[in-house]
Amino acid sequence: MRVVTLAGGTGAAKLLRGLATCVTPRELTVIGNTGDDTEVWGLHISPDLDTVTYALAGLLDVERGWGLTAETFNCLAAMAAHGADTWFNLGDRDLATHLMRTRALAERHPLSTVTARLATDHGVASRILPMSDDPVRTMIRTPGGRLTFQEYFVREKALVEVLGVDYDGAPCARPAPGVVEAIRTADVVIVCPSNPVTSIGPILAVPGIVEALSATAAPVVGVSPIVGGAAVSGPAGALMRVRGLTVSPLGVAEAYAPWLRRLLIDSRDRACVGDLARVGVEAEVAEIVMTSRAHEATLARRVLDAALARRAT
Amino acid sequence: MRVVTLAGGTGAAKLLRGLATCVTPRELTVIGNTGDDTEVWGLHISPDLDTVTYALAGLLDVERGWGLTAETFNCLAAMAAHGADTWFNLGDRDLATHLMRTRALAERHPLSTVTARLATDHGVASRILPMSDDPVRTMIRTPGGRLTFQEYFVREKALVEVLGVDYDGAPCARPAPGVVEAIRTADVVIVCPSNPVTSIGPILAVPGIVEALSATAAPVVGVSPIVGGAAVSGPAGALMRVRGLTVSPLGVAEAYAPWLRRLLIDSRDRACVGDLARVGVEAEVAEIVMTSRAHEATLARRVLDAALARRAT
Repeated sequence: MRVVTLAGGTGAAKLLRGLATCVTPRELTVIGNTGDDTEVWGLHISPDLDTVTYALAGLLDVERGWGLTAETFNCLAAMAAHGADTWFNLGDRDLATHLMRTRALAERHPLSTVTARLATDHGVASRILPMSDDPVRTMIRTPGGRLTFQEYFVREKALVEVLGVDYDGAPCARPAPGVVEAIRTADVVIVCPSNPVTSIGPILAVPGIVEALSATAAPVVGVSPIVGGAAVSGPAGALMRVRGLTVSPLGVAEAYAPWLRRLLIDSRDRACVGDLARVGVEAEVAEIVMTSRAHEATLARRVLDAALARRAT
Repeated sequence: MRVVTLAGGTGAAKLLRGLATCVTPRELTVIGNTGDDTEVWGLHISPDLDTVTYALAGLLDVERGWGLTAETFNCLAAMAAHGADTWFNLGDRDLATHLMRTRALAERHPLSTVTARLATDHGVASRILPMSDDPVRTMIRTPGGRLTFQEYFVREKALVEVLGVDYDGAPCARPAPGVVEAIRTADVVIVCPSNPVTSIGPILAVPGIVEALSATAAPVVGVSPIVGGAAVSGPAGALMRVRGLTVSPLGVAEAYAPWLRRLLIDSRDRACVGDLARVGVEAEVAEIVMTSRAHEATLARRVLDAALARRAT
């Protein structure tokens, strides 16, 4: 069963770890967000691709939700002594990932090749594809100017007012090799519980990907990143609002209609079932806040079942 | 008293630590070798400049003779897992130096500016100048092809046959800003006990530096890196031989004549005194193998005294 996922960072990592317990690694393809890629200390960082890779490798620091387990930060401390920016935490072992990627990109290898190599190096047999080999940068418009997503989220802790969101480069970006084909030939497509604006939004902004999602014969199901009127983690609320989406499973469904068949929503959002039906998305009520590894696996199974269940008519 | 030194790595570091106990930091200028600069993992490494900087900062790992004290190597271990070359050891804290340098060079700052900044960051008040801002690369000709100095010395452990030594780029290189002026206005010029072929040789290969050494009114004194027919450390022997220099204080004197006034040689090489006189270099016999911090200071004092002593006639 070919399972294709659209993924951001932390929330996606949990569901992907769950899916890894349900399907064989080679059946799983991840299409990852690169809109929040950034440059730190001259190194190319792909935070979401790394989070997904480390999660599938069993190496993600679960407490922090980013970076490697048992990490040290000695280079970071030395960089601080040099007066370098250190608001973006890079661990010593994690640095190897960025050094490898930066050098390979400098040697003109496409990001998709580099990402595959890094996954293999970490023992990940699933396929991790960046949404595009072309640069797309999610920019947050604020009263003080435009910020990259990392500047907004990590440096400013998402405390500044958001006026808008741009996906710089997206109009000219092409889906990375394998992305459209994976969606086209999938048995199931899953939209992970990631920020619809800054995690899934950049993926959908790459011309050709929404078309592939609309055309695929595979059922497309999602898990809501919004529970009880707020994001499970991260700044999705403010970002959805500025995009004109209600901060509720309905807003998520609207962002993904008309190609989303079914959305898993939390039992607390049971009242939204009718709203979702009105935008053509079937709601499935479940306990979607993953609080343990066991829960990740249970929810992943539930998502697959929801995808494969016959369309309610 | 303006003391200007020509310096390689390990041997120079010891004498410089000694000199730092004799003169105020701002009186000391180091002209450092960049012929063995190299690129590792996409980072620009200046091994000799770093060794000198770390030594003057009191941060050099004295046992190893390179790198920082209390260093960790977690990034290196992760790079090994990626299959990257790891024969050149880069510590986690040391990496910060190379990241800072690489980014600054990429932003078109000259190496001399970057080197000064790194010295300041490490609390070093002495002036550390690269011999040149232009790239000079010491290449070792071997039966299997040309190797960079680091490939020859670190990767191949200096075990391959040497057919010759080239200083690529030297004919077009200009002395870094301040180098010629420092030599011209020095009160004393000291040639550290460094490899005459691959540490001091590249410095002398930069057009203008030998001319400055010949023209300066300052006495120029050296400390022999050769004791008892062999190098105190490193591969100087084989490299001197291939350059037609005898592996003795005489070979060192020949390399630096006619601008070297005096050379400190070890008591074991007492028999060379007459040979040195014949090439116009005064020999001064001392215990020159520095085996302790106290010995570094004693020898440094001795070198300054030798420089300031009246010319024997």
